[in-house]
Amino acid sequence: MEFATTNLESCYHENISLSADGTAVVILDQTLLPNEERLIELRGADELYEAIYSLRIRGAPAIGIFAAYALYIFALGLPPCEPAAFREQTLGFSARLCSARPTAVNLARQLQRMETIVRKHGNAPRADQLAAMKGEAEAIRCEDIEMCRAISEHGLTLIGEGQGVLTHCNAGPLATSRYGTGLGAILLARERGINLRVYCDETRPLLQGARLTVYELMKAGVDCTLICDNMASIVMKEGKIDAVFVGADRVARNGDAANKIGTSGVAILAKHYGIPFYVFCPSSTIDPDCASGGEIVIEQRPPQEISQLYFEKPIAPAGAKCYNPAFDVTDSSLISAIVTEGGVHRGPYDFSDKEQ
Amino acid sequence: MEFATTNLESCYHENISLSADGTAVVILDQTLLPNEERLIELRGADELYEAIYSLRIRGAPAIGIFAAYALYIFALGLPPCEPAAFREQTLGFSARLCSARPTAVNLARQLQRMETIVRKHGNAPRADQLAAMKGEAEAIRCEDIEMCRAISEHGLTLIGEGQGVLTHCNAGPLATSRYGTGLGAILLARERGINLRVYCDETRPLLQGARLTVYELMKAGVDCTLICDNMASIVMKEGKIDAVFVGADRVARNGDAANKIGTSGVAILAKHYGIPFYVFCPSSTIDPDCASGGEIVIEQRPPQEISQLYFEKPIAPAGAKCYNPAFDVTDSSLISAIVTEGGVHRGPYDFSDKEQ
Repeated sequence: MEFATTNLESCYHENISLSADGTAVVILDQTLLPNEERLIELRGADELYEAIYSLRIRGAPAIGIFAAYALYIFALGLPPCEPAAFREQTLGFSARLCSARPTAVNLARQLQRMETIVRKHGNAPRADQLAAMKGEAEAIRCEDIEMCRAISEHGLTLIGEGQGVLTHCNAGPLATSRYGTGLGAILLARERGINLRVYCDETRPLLQGARLTVYELMKAGVDCTLICDNMASIVMKEGKIDAVFVGADRVARNGDAANKIGTSGVAILAKHYGIPFYVFCPSSTIDPDCASGGEIVIEQRPPQEISQLYFEKPIAPAGAKCYNPAFDVTDSSLISAIVTEGGVHRGPYDFSDKEQ
Repeated sequence: MEFATTNLESCYHENISLSADGTAVVILDQTLLPNEERLIELRGADELYEAIYSLRIRGAPAIGIFAAYALYIFALGLPPCEPAAFREQTLGFSARLCSARPTAVNLARQLQRMETIVRKHGNAPRADQLAAMKGEAEAIRCEDIEMCRAISEHGLTLIGEGQGVLTHCNAGPLATSRYGTGLGAILLARERGINLRVYCDETRPLLQGARLTVYELMKAGVDCTLICDNMASIVMKEGKIDAVFVGADRVARNGDAANKIGTSGVAILAKHYGIPFYVFCPSSTIDPDCASGGEIVIEQRPPQEISQLYFEKPIAPAGAKCYNPAFDVTDSSLISAIVTEGGVHRGPYDFSDKEQ
């Protein structure tokens, strides 16, 4: 894996791109933030898979876009072979990529789009197949940028000058191609001179709120304050919060929303304190084939993420048992609105038609 | 500060004691757990104060007991002087100790007991004054052991074989003189062959749940699982939790209870999921002079506890603003019962008479 340390001025950098020679996917390694801004070039199958599994790239939309590019780069690197073998190996790697993180629907959905291209151009010359795959990956990325822009515009109708917003995990530019979902409206507000006060849950165990959301908001000049996850109740009680903005990894037909572990708890607190709770996502995150949250597979991650990772010394006795679900499902009854590129949707939700 | 590293077999060790030569208070340095069991001897005024401020000793009852011994050791170390000067210096150090942590009432209450002794024996020979102070400190410690035993017996009536209990922060032997408050019933259940499954919130920022509660429960052989604070909602939703057991740092006359930051959020989740939420404390934690939770001063701690402490590298960008309240207040309407040495009290609460 090649890499270069950089120094980004804006939070609106290109988060996922191809290398200058076109043979690798380039991403900002999110596991190193905020201490180092390192761009890494990924090309081998294992490297590409590991980048998703280890959260070097994360955020439901970003994973989907990355996977599309990753499949193209994998196919590009295949040695000469028969079209059937090319197709088989490419589809095989697509299945492997898809298994890296089960909860977000975007990963499966964007890989399905890529697989459709692979099947459709199955007998075309290799160069044409690769050009079609590259084009589809770029289309996915460009669509995401447009969707995030539209989501942010809709989100801006939900907040006003001087208000306080609580965020959980990271749903900013780093989680998408460029603008963000849950953070998009906040960044747009900043561009338009609307002042907000943002409280960011640190989001254990992997601290995406502390490491990524605070990083993005500080770069954008937004007034933000880091809190531990268990401080959400006190900041709500003290009247500091007017709205909660979160992203989503998969939204069921009935509006139940899977998102980073802890989101459902924040939603329950918001309901208790009478604070609106908004979910932001592109329509590609809505899964009309999933009737309710009970059908969503919750990814279980290694216990060491809780007991050791990020700590100088273990913070629990050796052998301590840990339970580490990476997501939870927020019941649709707790969600004030789900904001997609199509608009602000309020319950009761029915996402039978995925074009929202 | 002198110290010795030890290897404790049981979680029922003597948590606060005098050194063999009687000139120092000996405690287990809780900031080093679970990685090292270090007993430290404290005697100077700065050392004694710092031990409370830096949480080498913590837990509302334990702080009160420690402060009583600390005042005695301070007085013991005073050079020869007139009784008035002795009294003035001792009372001055009592005020300083009391300021180390404002939220727990036990610290103020036990120091008041010691101050009464100092005033009462003001003109007695120095040796008699010191003997009276030492006796009062030992009485405070012995009373706490008895209260914790009684609290634990009452608590045992609230749980049964095979049930799941969620804990937040640490209310075990380390937080008291010996048995614990919130953890007492769990440890007693273990002694009596009742099997429980305990889920322990890690309790950011200082991780008392991960470092101390899991440590104590594993030593006692209790089935325990460490979770991040934001996983409390999912374990409740999954049916893993039958009751929540927490301690308290100050309980107002109307039953509002200040406890470790995050407790109020857990109480709201428990109410949402229909799970009983129990607060355990000795009656010395009830403050009948405090009408409601709004009067309780919430200690604010340094931002570095969130952004840096325990981490190998900073987990937030340099200069990130942090909000770090150490406690929050749980509304009495969210509390199913408050368990003291006097019994299981259910709302509506009226603790006008502090003998409960």
